[in-house]
Amino acid sequence: MGNEIKVFAPASVTNVGPGFDIMGFALETPGDELILKISDKPGIRIIKIEGDNGKLPVASEKNTAGASLISMAEHLKFDKGLEIEIHKKMKSGSGLGSSAASAVASVFALNELLETPLSKNQLLKFALEGEKLTSGGSPHADNVSACLFGGFIIVRSISPFDIINIPTPDDIHCVILNPDTEVKTSDARKVLPKNISLKDAVIQWGNIASLVAGFMKNDYNLIKRSLKDIICEPVRAELIPGYQGIKNAALDAGAIGAGISGSGPSVFAFCRSVEHGEIIGSAMKVVTDSLNIESEIYISKINHTGPRVI
Amino acid sequence: MGNEIKVFAPASVTNVGPGFDIMGFALETPGDELILKISDKPGIRIIKIEGDNGKLPVASEKNTAGASLISMAEHLKFDKGLEIEIHKKMKSGSGLGSSAASAVASVFALNELLETPLSKNQLLKFALEGEKLTSGGSPHADNVSACLFGGFIIVRSISPFDIINIPTPDDIHCVILNPDTEVKTSDARKVLPKNISLKDAVIQWGNIASLVAGFMKNDYNLIKRSLKDIICEPVRAELIPGYQGIKNAALDAGAIGAGISGSGPSVFAFCRSVEHGEIIGSAMKVVTDSLNIESEIYISKINHTGPRVI
Repeated sequence: MGNEIKVFAPASVTNVGPGFDIMGFALETPGDELILKISDKPGIRIIKIEGDNGKLPVASEKNTAGASLISMAEHLKFDKGLEIEIHKKMKSGSGLGSSAASAVASVFALNELLETPLSKNQLLKFALEGEKLTSGGSPHADNVSACLFGGFIIVRSISPFDIINIPTPDDIHCVILNPDTEVKTSDARKVLPKNISLKDAVIQWGNIASLVAGFMKNDYNLIKRSLKDIICEPVRAELIPGYQGIKNAALDAGAIGAGISGSGPSVFAFCRSVEHGEIIGSAMKVVTDSLNIESEIYISKINHTGPRVI
Repeated sequence: MGNEIKVFAPASVTNVGPGFDIMGFALETPGDELILKISDKPGIRIIKIEGDNGKLPVASEKNTAGASLISMAEHLKFDKGLEIEIHKKMKSGSGLGSSAASAVASVFALNELLETPLSKNQLLKFALEGEKLTSGGSPHADNVSACLFGGFIIVRSISPFDIINIPTPDDIHCVILNPDTEVKTSDARKVLPKNISLKDAVIQWGNIASLVAGFMKNDYNLIKRSLKDIICEPVRAELIPGYQGIKNAALDAGAIGAGISGSGPSVFAFCRSVEHGEIIGSAMKVVTDSLNIESEIYISKINHTGPRVI
C-alpha cells in the first residue's frame, strides 16, 4: 500500500436533451486531478485547491471531496489522517459536473490507495455524500454516476442504486462550449415547473425512449431527431445568455443535436470527428464572442473508463 | 390484379408498462381476419361482421375498417366498389387493439389487391382515420403502428410520423389474459391525470429509457425492473376487477414483468417459453375464475411481420 496517489476524474454531461435527471455521460477532457496522501496526523484536511479562484471551501466537511472522504473513512474505520490536494480543471457552476468530479476523485483515490476494498457501487454512496453539499441535501446521482462508472448511463433508480450502461456509437464525439458565466444548480432547479402536463410528459418520454434506441442502433439521424427537451430546456435557456444562438450555430454547423449540459451554462453538441467538432465549436464560440462572453471549447469522445490513476 | 383477398392483422399490446401512448408490439395471435372484394357496384360496404356479437357498426363510415378504406380509396381515386367481410377474433374494448387490427387489415388488403401502390407509412395515415372513430377524434397511433409495422415499436411522433423499431430478445413470449369485461378507451382516458409531478415523470422516463435498453441488451432482469408504470397503472387498475391479484399471480409464477394491455382489461406478462407462458396464464386465470369472470389466455411471440395475406 502506497502513501500517496494522484488521480483524474472526468467532467460529465448530464440531462442530455430529454433525459432530465436520469441520463449522463463522462468526458475524456476536461477533468479534475486530485492528490491524496495518507498522513500520521489524524483528520481529513484539504491542503491545497488550485484553479478555483479561491471560491471553493477548504474546510473538509464543506468541500465535496472532503465530505465524501469523511463518510468513506468512517465506513472503513480508517483511522489515519488524509491530506487532499485538488487541481480543478473546470469551474464550479459550469454544468460539467465539477463537484461530482472532485467527489469521485477523492473516493476513488482512497479506494485505490487501500487496494480497492470497495466496489464502484459502494463508492457511489460516499461520492453522493459530497455531492449533497451542492444540491441542498437531495443529491442527483447523474453526474456522480457518469463520472464514476464512465460511459453513457441511465440512473434508473437511486434507492436502490440502479445505474444502466448504454452502448454508444464508437465515433461519437461531444463538443462543449463552456461560457464564463455561472448558473447555480439551485437557481436552475427553481425555474423548473413542479408539475407538467401528461401530454408533454408523453412527448418527452417518446424522445427519451427513441434516444436510447438511437444510441444503441448507431442511428445518428434518430439521435438527432430525439435529442429534444420540451420541459426543462425552454425555462433553463433563459438563464444562459445567447443560448438559442449557440445551439442554432452548432446545428447549422452540422451537429447531431445540441442541448444544455447539466443545468448550464455549458452547451454540448454531438458530432462524429474531432475535425467536425472544431468547426462546430468555432461556430458556437462566434456567438459568445459577439456577446463579449469569454468561453472555452472542449472536444472529447465519451470516456468509458471513469476515474483513473495518473 | 385479383378481385378478392383475405388478410390477417394482429392484435397488439400497447403502453407496455411505463411507455404510455408511445410503445407497443404486435402479437402472432389473436388477430382479425378480413376479406376484401372489388365489386362493380360503387361504394364501400360492410357485408358481414362475424364474432362481434352484433356490437360493431355496419355503416362503413362508422366502422374502423370502412372509414379507413373510404379515406384510402378517396386518396387513390379508386372508383370501383369494395365489399368487406370481417371476422373478429377479439372483442372490442379488450385492450388488444381490436379496432386497430380491423383498420390495418382493411388498408393492407386494398393495398395488396392493388399491388402495393402505397408504403406502410402511407397506409398508417388511412388506418388512423378509422382508429379516430374509437378515440373521439384524436387517434393514438400506438396500436395501429404496432399492428401495421409488426415488431416492438416506439411512436416518437405522429406529426410527422416517426415510428421506431426496437429489437427484442428472440425468445421473449407474451402471455395475455383477456377477461370478459370491457373497459372503454374513453373511460380509461377520463381517469388519467391531466397533470403529473415532474418528480413522477422523471421516475417514469428513467424506467422507459431502461426498458428500451433492457430489450436491446437482451437483459431480462432489467426488463423486469423497468416494467413499472407509476402514472397510469394505479388509476386504470381500478377499472379492471381483480387487476392487482392477476398481476401478482403472473409475477409469482415467474413472469418477467406484467401490466395492463392498452387501456385494459387485458393483462399481459412476459416470459421466455410457451411452457412457462402456460403456467403463468393458468395462475392469472385462477384469479379471474375466483371472481366468476370468464377469461381467455393467449400465448404469443412478438409478431415481426404485421398484417399478412392468408
